Amino acid sequence: MSLKSGLCISLDPDIRRIPAHLMRGEQPIISFLTQVIHSTRRFASAYKINTAFFEQYGRSGIEAMYRIREELGESYCIVDAKRGDIGNSSDAYARAIFDDLKADAATVSPYMGRDSAEAFLKYENKLVYVLALTSNPGASDFQFLNVNGQPLYSVVIERAMNWDRSADLGFVFGANRLEQIADFRIAHPNVPLLLPGIGAQGATLESAKTANANGPAFFSVGREILYSSDGEDFAEQAARAASRFLL
Amino acid sequence: MSLKSGLCISLDPDIRRIPAHLMRGEQPIISFLTQVIHSTRRFASAYKINTAFFEQYGRSGIEAMYRIREELGESYCIVDAKRGDIGNSSDAYARAIFDDLKADAATVSPYMGRDSAEAFLKYENKLVYVLALTSNPGASDFQFLNVNGQPLYSVVIERAMNWDRSADLGFVFGANRLEQIADFRIAHPNVPLLLPGIGAQGATLESAKTANANGPAFFSVGREILYSSDGEDFAEQAARAASRFLL
Repeated sequence: MSLKSGLCISLDPDIRRIPAHLMRGEQPIISFLTQVIHSTRRFASAYKINTAFFEQYGRSGIEAMYRIREELGESYCIVDAKRGDIGNSSDAYARAIFDDLKADAATVSPYMGRDSAEAFLKYENKLVYVLALTSNPGASDFQFLNVNGQPLYSVVIERAMNWDRSADLGFVFGANRLEQIADFRIAHPNVPLLLPGIGAQGATLESAKTANANGPAFFSVGREILYSSDGEDFAEQAARAASRFLL
Repeated sequence: MSLKSGLCISLDPDIRRIPAHLMRGEQPIISFLTQVIHSTRRFASAYKINTAFFEQYGRSGIEAMYRIREELGESYCIVDAKRGDIGNSSDAYARAIFDDLKADAATVSPYMGRDSAEAFLKYENKLVYVLALTSNPGASDFQFLNVNGQPLYSVVIERAMNWDRSADLGFVFGANRLEQIADFRIAHPNVPLLLPGIGAQGATLESAKTANANGPAFFSVGREILYSSDGEDFAEQAARAASRFLL
């Protein structure tokens, strides 16, 4: 499970970009993503549900999220929610993501430390990605802070590797963090990575693949696949775009 | 808005602790929390929706969360979701919390830096609490790390204070962090604090009030109020418990 690799399609619904003919029908988000999933399934090793993009549409967005999870069926499903809270709240988040949404993997935020992650890590046959070094400009505010000669993100990795767990443990690096991905791979050839930020966020698949040195990693692409066309051929064009991101 | 103070009741639904007679009826979470809200309203300066406890019940939990938000009406509503993501995802979370759920205030996690918070901070007439020093044991994994002689949580505060904003900015400290709350109050007498962890998590209201030195703060109490009785008198007993936490 933890050693899977390949293209991960990030499901980021945005009603401003869903083709107009779907927006005139019922449940455009469900209809749009369902068709994209079916057309891209042969290229995708995983799908990533970005909870933010569903939650922004309130109750109907959440309903769409659950429906889309069902649509994914046996496809590997990462729920990218970046949760992190005190023990009993993190327990509740882990239940939401692993039991209700039946995710295979989840992302968690490390700021609150060990007991905020362990609710997730105690699940068997799941994969938990801890945020390490993210792709966004704000990453440099804290993740690179110098902690006794070591950047904070690297302290996060070191400590997280020592946490008790039943789940597999992986890390999130922005796909644009080529140097740090390469360094990580030298130290940890077999630890899974989730590498978002291919495409719209500026990283190329080729450079990220090279930095990753054939370690287990999902390369996550969202907008560049989902919104390849705003016409009736959107699903076909999404598949065509996905095929260009094949490893 | 940012200078409100008083008791904040944390809405943490747990079906294992909701009175049995409600569990036999329809929509026990909505029924339970609605009655608690009505009975405690004269004592509470704010309510805090803990998203984890609603999300753990899947679609029906989310429906309950929206219904409870409506029930809160004009009561001050903090959505404690601890979100944090790259720009466009944080934009989506901020819409979910401020536009859909119509929260007055929200908690955000700082790990991903400035652009993960700014989606929230750009809202006017809202209050954004950034996690600083949390109440849980895992807080010491990272929040106390030594960054050039300064603990990480204090670097977070310092940087966050310099971020552009239209919203008011506050911070979360665990109510058990008496020394650090007192130090913060000396430096920042008027910056709002959210202080969870009174009651079940071990801090007393008296000690937290003393440390807070009359600065603007919500003292958050959950289980000790919600689950005061598992009988038919649960709402009355919740009100009685809330009255004991009056400032």
